[in-house]
Amino acid sequence: MTSETPIIVLVRPQLGENIGKCARAMLNFGLTELRMVAPRDGWPNPSAGPAAAGADSVLDQAKIYDTTAEAVADCSHVYATTVRLREDTKRVVTPEEAATEVFNQAGRSAFLFGREASGLDVQDVAMANAILTVPINPEFGSLNLAQAVILCAYEWSKTQSLSQPTLTEQLPPAPQQDLDGLIGHLEAMLEPKGYFLPDSRADATRRTLRNVLTKPGWNHLEVRTLRGVLSTLAKRDRK
Amino acid sequence: MTSETPIIVLVRPQLGENIGKCARAMLNFGLTELRMVAPRDGWPNPSAGPAAAGADSVLDQAKIYDTTAEAVADCSHVYATTVRLREDTKRVVTPEEAATEVFNQAGRSAFLFGREASGLDVQDVAMANAILTVPINPEFGSLNLAQAVILCAYEWSKTQSLSQPTLTEQLPPAPQQDLDGLIGHLEAMLEPKGYFLPDSRADATRRTLRNVLTKPGWNHLEVRTLRGVLSTLAKRDRK
Repeated sequence: MTSETPIIVLVRPQLGENIGKCARAMLNFGLTELRMVAPRDGWPNPSAGPAAAGADSVLDQAKIYDTTAEAVADCSHVYATTVRLREDTKRVVTPEEAATEVFNQAGRSAFLFGREASGLDVQDVAMANAILTVPINPEFGSLNLAQAVILCAYEWSKTQSLSQPTLTEQLPPAPQQDLDGLIGHLEAMLEPKGYFLPDSRADATRRTLRNVLTKPGWNHLEVRTLRGVLSTLAKRDRK
Repeated sequence: MTSETPIIVLVRPQLGENIGKCARAMLNFGLTELRMVAPRDGWPNPSAGPAAAGADSVLDQAKIYDTTAEAVADCSHVYATTVRLREDTKRVVTPEEAATEVFNQAGRSAFLFGREASGLDVQDVAMANAILTVPINPEFGSLNLAQAVILCAYEWSKTQSLSQPTLTEQLPPAPQQDLDGLIGHLEAMLEPKGYFLPDSRADATRRTLRNVLTKPGWNHLEVRTLRGVLSTLAKRDRK
């Protein structure tokens, strides 16, 4: 099954700059569908483009509606985002829970965000199937619009496998014989300097050394670097 | 045991406004410890306060350092945040994975963020135990500094509502200053033997060495063992 990407709906947004920042936040995490209900300063807004920092495609495709009802008319799942909980009978979910739902449910999903100064009206919240609340520091709740959008977009992106993988192809640890070569090299240098004396402690000291040098899981290039270090240490100082 | 809150380290941040936004982003999710390495316009910066939108307590307690090494001297776990993957031998984690690690591991943890325009230098990355990469739209990666900070803070805050038991009988990695002592000791021995010649390769060679020695995450006992090894190697052979 292919999950449908959620729609970001800005209800009566005030500053064009913030609209642009939302577009930028969205596109970072693969969201492209922006809808707006009655933006205060009309649309298009010349302040939005510069703030979008390259996410112009999101702004160009943005759709404008007169009412929230029209903006979500084709959506099966509407989430009203709020920072503070309201007395309400609706279900409350975190961005993470909402993302999982969006990923698993059939039909379009929309996230509603209110105006910068005051958030969503009760009438807008009434349109929603659930409340999405970002759990936040109870003594300092000050998320701006684009930050609220980016957290929702980020959580949604985690459900997608198309996001860039983070696993690098790390080299595996060097074969044991390489590591043994390194340890043998070091021991041979330490031996004549009395590192393994007294004899009664020699085995424990060798074990400690091996443990310390085994822990890193160095790859063959790193082991080769360290062999070079040891060879250099065995040289005389240059004039 | 109680998990320690991570430290946010801004390395050579440029605009005071962005520093303020980072403070605001942090406090939303309960992070209060901000450190800065050589902020471009000095400190305090009059542009930071207004952008902090009430998170002044974070700015007031911010500490300033000349070098990244000093800023993370007391940290056992250092994460270098990058948007793009680099060819590197270090471990790569997501914000979520890093948050889980920070929650579970003993010792202080720090998240390093580079300057707005260009991110972290290779020298800063070399200080880190792991790379933290936000998986992002491969065709549009445009996270700003405060957004990168907020995603890390947000993920960390999610660990705080969990009550999973911590499992850390192992000693934590030694503080960065202990590791620096080891690296400095070895470099001082290698220098007179010409290991860092030619000069044009010296920086890269030092970085390679630091990366190899940072990877293990040795604890303070292991570092002490290796200091002893170096001291022994500097001695003359016994008769």
